[in-house]
Amino acid sequence: MQIDDIMLWSAQAFEQYRAVTPPLRAAFLEKIAAEIEGQREVLVQTAHEETNLPLPRLNGEITRTTTQLQMFANLIKEGSWVEAVIDTAKPDVTPPKPDLRRMLLPVGPVVVFGASNFPFAFSTAGGDTVSALAAGATVVIKGHPAHPRTSLLVFTAMKKAIAACGMPANTIQHVADEGYETGKALVQHPLATGVAFTGSFQGGKALSSYAAQREVPIPVFAEMSSINPVVFFPDALRQQAQQLAQTFAASITLGMGQFCTNPGLLIGLQSEETENFLQMLGTAIAASTPQKMLHNGIYKAYQTGRSHMLAQETLTLVSETAAPAAEEAWPALARTTGKAFLANPSLQEEVFGPYSLMVVCADKTELIAVLKSLRGQLTTTIIGTETDTEKWQDVIAVQTTLAGRVILNNAPTGVEVCAAMVHGGPYPATTDQRFTSVGTGAIRRWVRPVCFQNFTDAMLPDALKKDNPLGIWRLVNNEYTR
Amino acid sequence: MQIDDIMLWSAQAFEQYRAVTPPLRAAFLEKIAAEIEGQREVLVQTAHEETNLPLPRLNGEITRTTTQLQMFANLIKEGSWVEAVIDTAKPDVTPPKPDLRRMLLPVGPVVVFGASNFPFAFSTAGGDTVSALAAGATVVIKGHPAHPRTSLLVFTAMKKAIAACGMPANTIQHVADEGYETGKALVQHPLATGVAFTGSFQGGKALSSYAAQREVPIPVFAEMSSINPVVFFPDALRQQAQQLAQTFAASITLGMGQFCTNPGLLIGLQSEETENFLQMLGTAIAASTPQKMLHNGIYKAYQTGRSHMLAQETLTLVSETAAPAAEEAWPALARTTGKAFLANPSLQEEVFGPYSLMVVCADKTELIAVLKSLRGQLTTTIIGTETDTEKWQDVIAVQTTLAGRVILNNAPTGVEVCAAMVHGGPYPATTDQRFTSVGTGAIRRWVRPVCFQNFTDAMLPDALKKDNPLGIWRLVNNEYTR
Repeated sequence: MQIDDIMLWSAQAFEQYRAVTPPLRAAFLEKIAAEIEGQREVLVQTAHEETNLPLPRLNGEITRTTTQLQMFANLIKEGSWVEAVIDTAKPDVTPPKPDLRRMLLPVGPVVVFGASNFPFAFSTAGGDTVSALAAGATVVIKGHPAHPRTSLLVFTAMKKAIAACGMPANTIQHVADEGYETGKALVQHPLATGVAFTGSFQGGKALSSYAAQREVPIPVFAEMSSINPVVFFPDALRQQAQQLAQTFAASITLGMGQFCTNPGLLIGLQSEETENFLQMLGTAIAASTPQKMLHNGIYKAYQTGRSHMLAQETLTLVSETAAPAAEEAWPALARTTGKAFLANPSLQEEVFGPYSLMVVCADKTELIAVLKSLRGQLTTTIIGTETDTEKWQDVIAVQTTLAGRVILNNAPTGVEVCAAMVHGGPYPATTDQRFTSVGTGAIRRWVRPVCFQNFTDAMLPDALKKDNPLGIWRLVNNEYTR
Repeated sequence: MQIDDIMLWSAQAFEQYRAVTPPLRAAFLEKIAAEIEGQREVLVQTAHEETNLPLPRLNGEITRTTTQLQMFANLIKEGSWVEAVIDTAKPDVTPPKPDLRRMLLPVGPVVVFGASNFPFAFSTAGGDTVSALAAGATVVIKGHPAHPRTSLLVFTAMKKAIAACGMPANTIQHVADEGYETGKALVQHPLATGVAFTGSFQGGKALSSYAAQREVPIPVFAEMSSINPVVFFPDALRQQAQQLAQTFAASITLGMGQFCTNPGLLIGLQSEETENFLQMLGTAIAASTPQKMLHNGIYKAYQTGRSHMLAQETLTLVSETAAPAAEEAWPALARTTGKAFLANPSLQEEVFGPYSLMVVCADKTELIAVLKSLRGQLTTTIIGTETDTEKWQDVIAVQTTLAGRVILNNAPTGVEVCAAMVHGGPYPATTDQRFTSVGTGAIRRWVRPVCFQNFTDAMLPDALKKDNPLGIWRLVNNEYTR
């Protein structure tokens, strides 16, 4: 594989693609969605064979992917996302103030690593690729080795959209996996300007380290690791134990726990209600059905992680299903005390799969200490009645500092694709908590602000011209106008 | 110096300061401005003694500093900067969509390194500190060793504002320089969440490397190195050579060239007009008055850099002033060919001071090659008539990719403090081209988006409540409203 050629072609395509007008870029995204929709049946079938994910889930994921393409098409058609800011000249002050206008512009070729657990929505034509294309960046996709045929089929659909819309041929390129070195070479290539990755902590850390060692460092937006702590407050457990047990057993075992937002850590206060809830949750998890995991590597990692945890002296198994068939994940619920959790940081390591640990704390002080001991998270959840949320405000205040998304009385699984979503969080949930990888905000990873000083109207980009030909929202002399 | 204590106090103060309401935070910034204004005379005199900068310049810089404080006070009083985004629930779709609301929240204690060349506007109470305070972050300032008394006086003024406004005592702390190790310890401290630095490439690179090696890496927003290339197009040189020579001689020697945006690289096409302009520019620079530099370290670095450049075989001295007195900078203009510049990357190293190099290119192809060979820049300038800007569009397109600010027919020195400003640019101009260190946009370095899912109105921050009690602009279901 000639990485040099691929990156050069991407940089050359960028010269043209960055100048494509927003309506044409939007039409291109819509065409990609249409091409994927046209291949829905074969895509779902292929992904099912490669990932063991059930057909309804994969059908839903295709819809999520095309909806995501449409969302970004709408975003760039509307146009205000470029954050146009205008300060007009003040020639009469001393010294005279020049005319200054700024907007967001794309940075250049982006490298996207496909994720194993979302063969469509977080892979080849997933949110990372689409947000970059929407921004005006070209993309080099490193297909995930666990679903190579799916990845290539999606890429073929995208190539058709490129041809149909007359986009530069190398706007999107696809590199089939040739192992570890290919990814490293892409990240280290001088023409790469940014990287997106969703996967393991080890993987994200390695890529970040390659990127930091470059002569010109570039950002790696890696989404890596999260156990998504859920705090169950007493009054809620008193009132809704059975319903909560059903909801969280479903969330823990959903898709065999192969979601970044899987609730891997449950936290409560020592009480009869907590014991009662734990028993109900254990029963519900024991009743779940083991299924095959995405691929053998993930299966083995889960088995190892699960065994390692259950071997810890201070940890007790609450329940598990009957032993599953070969290659199926074995759902399990464990428990420990706040004291033991605080003494053993390895208990907060992510076990990617249908495993969850309940930490029972002696009192509020210990509960807060447990929360403060946690690494950065994608989500954290509050399960509480109005009585609880009034009584436990200081606990909730700590939770708010932990994660990019704070949830009240919902399960953390389920990540809406919309403008308000934050799928990000303090390290090691992601490498940069200032950004999100889901929702329209994901586009900001691929752009930089550029200020034009004293430009003539003819020379300015349309977004910054005097008469606002695009009709977008702009901040003009500190007032929002359109 | 007990760095552990200082960072712990900062983290404790953050717990309270982050909850201070926007109007009170704005009043606090205004009070800092008032305290600095009240000390104007002694501050200017002290800084003059410590930095050799002339009194009028320092007076102007105090005004810039207080204006900056007022600008951030206005920003947070207006309130829309938090980028509130709301997607309301859709309970009737399958699966039901929860209510999602996001806004920007401060990340935690910030470490600010004072800059040597702006003892007020980029130091103790400068843009980095003020943007962090506006965001709701607490600040630990590492005073610059070249103006210790000035730094301490400014800090004392800030302490008075803290007391007068009843802010947590450790909202701002000041660490007098105790050498290299102190800065390193601050950046490496687990409680630090971000760093601001303006200075040398070596300094910025070292800090970035400490930050990347932490268990939890944090961003270092370093503004490091820029030679601010200016392209002089033929028609402009034909029509305005004398005026351009005066403007650029003044810009090159302004403040003895001790500005990040000093035009250190001039680029033109081989022609009679270029020769004529070079002669006029040389005459104007030779007529400038050498002055003392900020401190001995900068003076020595300038002398070394200047001598190193002038010793290059392919570089010719065009003009210099008469030999200056001891410790005064010696302004100089040199020239070389495009070919020689392309063959010798060291010619684009920054010589911080009143030195500038004109690169005379054989033709447009060579000029574009020279531009493409440049590292990332804070600014790039186009000097051209309407005839020029129409004729040389492909050159200008390359310039736009080089820098955070693209200027038409102005000198690059002079950085307005306003919403549209971008003082940033591709590496090594800064470590992260996605951010600016001047203007209201600077606040974004110290915040992260946080999404609240399914929250009750009572539990939401005011910025996200149903009735918009702050009256700010918000994106509600993809429509901007207030």
